[in-house]
Amino acid sequence: MGRAFNFSPGPAALPDAVLEQARAELLDYQGQGLSVMEMSHRSKEFIAIAEAAEADLRTLLAISDDYEVLFLQGGASMQFAMLPLNLCQAEDTVDYIHTGAWGSKAIAEAARLANVNIAASSADADFTCIPARHTWQLMPGAAYCHIVANETIGGVQFHDFPATPSPLVADMSSELLSRVIDVGRFGVIYAGAQKNIGPAGLCVVVIHKELLGRARPGTPRIFDYAVQAEHGSMFNTPPTYAWYLAGLVLRWLKDSGGVAAIETINRRKAAKLYAAIDASSLYTAPVAVQDRSIMNVPFTLADPALDAEFLAGAKQRRLANLKGHRSVGGMRASLYNAVSEAAVDALIDYMADFEKERA
Amino acid sequence: MGRAFNFSPGPAALPDAVLEQARAELLDYQGQGLSVMEMSHRSKEFIAIAEAAEADLRTLLAISDDYEVLFLQGGASMQFAMLPLNLCQAEDTVDYIHTGAWGSKAIAEAARLANVNIAASSADADFTCIPARHTWQLMPGAAYCHIVANETIGGVQFHDFPATPSPLVADMSSELLSRVIDVGRFGVIYAGAQKNIGPAGLCVVVIHKELLGRARPGTPRIFDYAVQAEHGSMFNTPPTYAWYLAGLVLRWLKDSGGVAAIETINRRKAAKLYAAIDASSLYTAPVAVQDRSIMNVPFTLADPALDAEFLAGAKQRRLANLKGHRSVGGMRASLYNAVSEAAVDALIDYMADFEKERA
Repeated sequence: MGRAFNFSPGPAALPDAVLEQARAELLDYQGQGLSVMEMSHRSKEFIAIAEAAEADLRTLLAISDDYEVLFLQGGASMQFAMLPLNLCQAEDTVDYIHTGAWGSKAIAEAARLANVNIAASSADADFTCIPARHTWQLMPGAAYCHIVANETIGGVQFHDFPATPSPLVADMSSELLSRVIDVGRFGVIYAGAQKNIGPAGLCVVVIHKELLGRARPGTPRIFDYAVQAEHGSMFNTPPTYAWYLAGLVLRWLKDSGGVAAIETINRRKAAKLYAAIDASSLYTAPVAVQDRSIMNVPFTLADPALDAEFLAGAKQRRLANLKGHRSVGGMRASLYNAVSEAAVDALIDYMADFEKERA
Repeated sequence: MGRAFNFSPGPAALPDAVLEQARAELLDYQGQGLSVMEMSHRSKEFIAIAEAAEADLRTLLAISDDYEVLFLQGGASMQFAMLPLNLCQAEDTVDYIHTGAWGSKAIAEAARLANVNIAASSADADFTCIPARHTWQLMPGAAYCHIVANETIGGVQFHDFPATPSPLVADMSSELLSRVIDVGRFGVIYAGAQKNIGPAGLCVVVIHKELLGRARPGTPRIFDYAVQAEHGSMFNTPPTYAWYLAGLVLRWLKDSGGVAAIETINRRKAAKLYAAIDASSLYTAPVAVQDRSIMNVPFTLADPALDAEFLAGAKQRRLANLKGHRSVGGMRASLYNAVSEAAVDALIDYMADFEKERA
């Protein structure tokens, strides 16, 4: 049947070339007679894989030596807890900007471990926009300011990163590596791998070295960034196969011209799809134009009664995983790096045909 | 070159049949046109994979409905912290039986979060035996009693599980599924997957339902067993591909006759290797005979100067990963379920040849 066009919000599409290489090496990595899954994380073969992945990530994002790069388990959700455990004490205040469902989760977890100041929120606008910087009410002396750079469910994205007096911390799960960023503006960037980096079960954390060594007393060592940094993310056995696959994805991205090149394609993909939605009378994109995500494109049909038919027709054309999140409804097309421009073209064609048949 | 005989202590050998199936399905799972890695954890395809893995594990170990089965991230090392966070308060006492390196790590982490009573230790015997049950000095009112059922590094294994007044908690990372156990005797069993279950990045926790809902105040929700149980181990995105591979391993084990059948083979493999060591004048197994592990067989050569030569010769015969842990030295052959009897025979032949050449 061939491969589907996969618009899954995550775990998401991976490049065919990466999966093909993984398949070719699955039972025998470079003549070792072993799968990468079957190797000690301390073996020289795996250490080389791990180091190459970190080096490629540093190159792709121009990460300076002022930052540690960690490859951890537990996903972004574990970071929701690790951040306050590592960056503040229980009596400290932390600023959170609330722009969607992932922000809600990050806030709920932080509130168990520190005083959360919601410095700005777009809840009143159903999370369809980013509150303007001049409206933010940051708390003087806050330990950090947390944003979700791209809300995977709502499809709202920061297109300019704000200057903040405290270290800026960003959940970039659904956008890291999709566009050029200036890492130097952030205290911490973290991203679950299962969008643009690799399979689920791995989380990349980029943290300024000045922020290490501040974990509050009693923090389990496995959750202490400084301990993980000291051990090269091998305080215990890391998720070796996920790390290897992330390495293949990073290599693929380098070979594809890097982040600037993929950003050009990503912007073109998103622009095409939004243009098609905006030109139609059947489809609507709910997010404010200036805050629309280039990674996750939610849209609704004029009549929700058509949703099931739309999805069934999409499936027939091998357009997979277009159903919107249950909290939002409608459709969502996730356009991560591994989603080709051909996939987006096929989606747009299908949407036009679907609309025409009902005109 | 073909596959090597892999004696790695972990991440460890996986069954060829499992890797072959994973390879066949890598780019297209059951005609979906997607890799399992590329599917939402909420998709019906993945839910079916996850449920089948749990059902097979329950069947293989005869786990009753009194227990929850969790598939978590973070490895056994994360459990070292989750156990005290979930099963006791900071002022409570917990009993630990200290029989090796993994016990040391579990104790160090628990000591940050509770009062640890080391009820028994074989430190004076270089961790080459299990302290007899009648010597244990358990603390009345302790929240639980923790053992490492099989010490991967030292090669020391409990062959009888003790009766304890408090819930018995066992790290079974390097032995779960290698022999028939009575789950009903335990409050919690946990095991990093990367020995007998699947790839690294997944940890199985089997916990009596009576022990849920006791997490201490302020415990991050992601580290609360009750929260994970309530969400079917999908509080956040689980390590889907590792879970899928674990499912393939569990299916393979069922198809191979189950735990009782593999235990017979495992005992035969270990008995052969220990017999060869005991019959030789070059090799020595340091562990007390009655406490020897059937999974991890450490042994030394009479002259450590021969170690490098032994390992080089082994490599030529495609016998991989026999080097002992740096803290113990010498050799270690790990004989997990996926290590065939043919692999053990090849090792024994090589050891005999190596000895003969030097006689």
